[in-house]
Amino acid sequence: MPMTDMKNLYLALIHYPVQNRKGEQAGSAVTNLDLHDLARAGRTFGVTAVYIVTPYGDQIQLVNELIAHWTQGVGSRTNPARKEALQLLRVVETWDQVLEDIQRETGDAKPVSIATSARTRKDAVDVKKVQMSLEQGNPHVLVFGTAWGLTQEFMDSCDMCLSPIQGPGRYNHLPVRSAVSIYLDRLNGCM
Amino acid sequence: MPMTDMKNLYLALIHYPVQNRKGEQAGSAVTNLDLHDLARAGRTFGVTAVYIVTPYGDQIQLVNELIAHWTQGVGSRTNPARKEALQLLRVVETWDQVLEDIQRETGDAKPVSIATSARTRKDAVDVKKVQMSLEQGNPHVLVFGTAWGLTQEFMDSCDMCLSPIQGPGRYNHLPVRSAVSIYLDRLNGCM
Repeated sequence: MPMTDMKNLYLALIHYPVQNRKGEQAGSAVTNLDLHDLARAGRTFGVTAVYIVTPYGDQIQLVNELIAHWTQGVGSRTNPARKEALQLLRVVETWDQVLEDIQRETGDAKPVSIATSARTRKDAVDVKKVQMSLEQGNPHVLVFGTAWGLTQEFMDSCDMCLSPIQGPGRYNHLPVRSAVSIYLDRLNGCM
Repeated sequence: MPMTDMKNLYLALIHYPVQNRKGEQAGSAVTNLDLHDLARAGRTFGVTAVYIVTPYGDQIQLVNELIAHWTQGVGSRTNPARKEALQLLRVVETWDQVLEDIQRETGDAKPVSIATSARTRKDAVDVKKVQMSLEQGNPHVLVFGTAWGLTQEFMDSCDMCLSPIQGPGRYNHLPVRSAVSIYLDRLNGCM
């Protein structure tokens, strides 16, 4: 499988709206290691930016302080590789702001949105379909939900939904950090 | 690529001996999310157990308390899927104890040890080679280092070293959580 040019790819990690364990719409707190892991995986596989989406003021402040520590503060001098990764992070309040920011940056039409989920959907597409779409050259954003995942309504609003990652059995409770890493590796051709 | 039978595969996460940022031999502290992510990825892809290797008494106690919370305590009742994953975890003091435990469990000869690293080695093997070796039916243990990775001496003592995961560029600072997830997906055939 040929390597995909990943520079047209953006990631977004949604903290609201997501599902709680009962399937209700809810918001989640930011996990520090999600920032690091998504930034490092994103940098490794060459995505252009990683959006952290949260409407909560205290969480936005926290994330901005963490980013500043690693990109401008002490962390940037002790660990330049980490700086290079965390520079990809962008904090925004809403999903609409993700779309607007990408559109502003690329001067393109609305980016192609690709939802991910641990649940199977009839209309789910495989990685090959996303690779083919990326080859068209327009921006794409791969979207991940925290907590119990993206809401049905959010997924319905996306242009595509990627097939879930499945192992040999039926267990499908991967951390979002794992799912991001695996999808990026698959999009890059698993080699 | 056919799916590999993963039941002969074990994971080990080493906290001593590993390298510090200067390349010196050192020990590292356990990261809580490593336990969860390796257990969840391991459970998804069907490995038999995940060894957490640390010689430090307080760390061993901490890890055992965390495991007990999720496998027997409140966590086991509120999140049964997490329980199912964290049941794979086994804490041991040394690498030799990993080998002995697998040998005792399988009644087999010494398991095949496969080191991982972000650094390229001349004698590194690809995932296909490991899949072929797993098909022989004897136990294998895939080993990951924390901090700045496994020591040269440790890697030299392993039966194989897997080629590093590389994206399209030269940046190769993936979290161990990402590396574990990607290697398991590749061993399972990336599908």
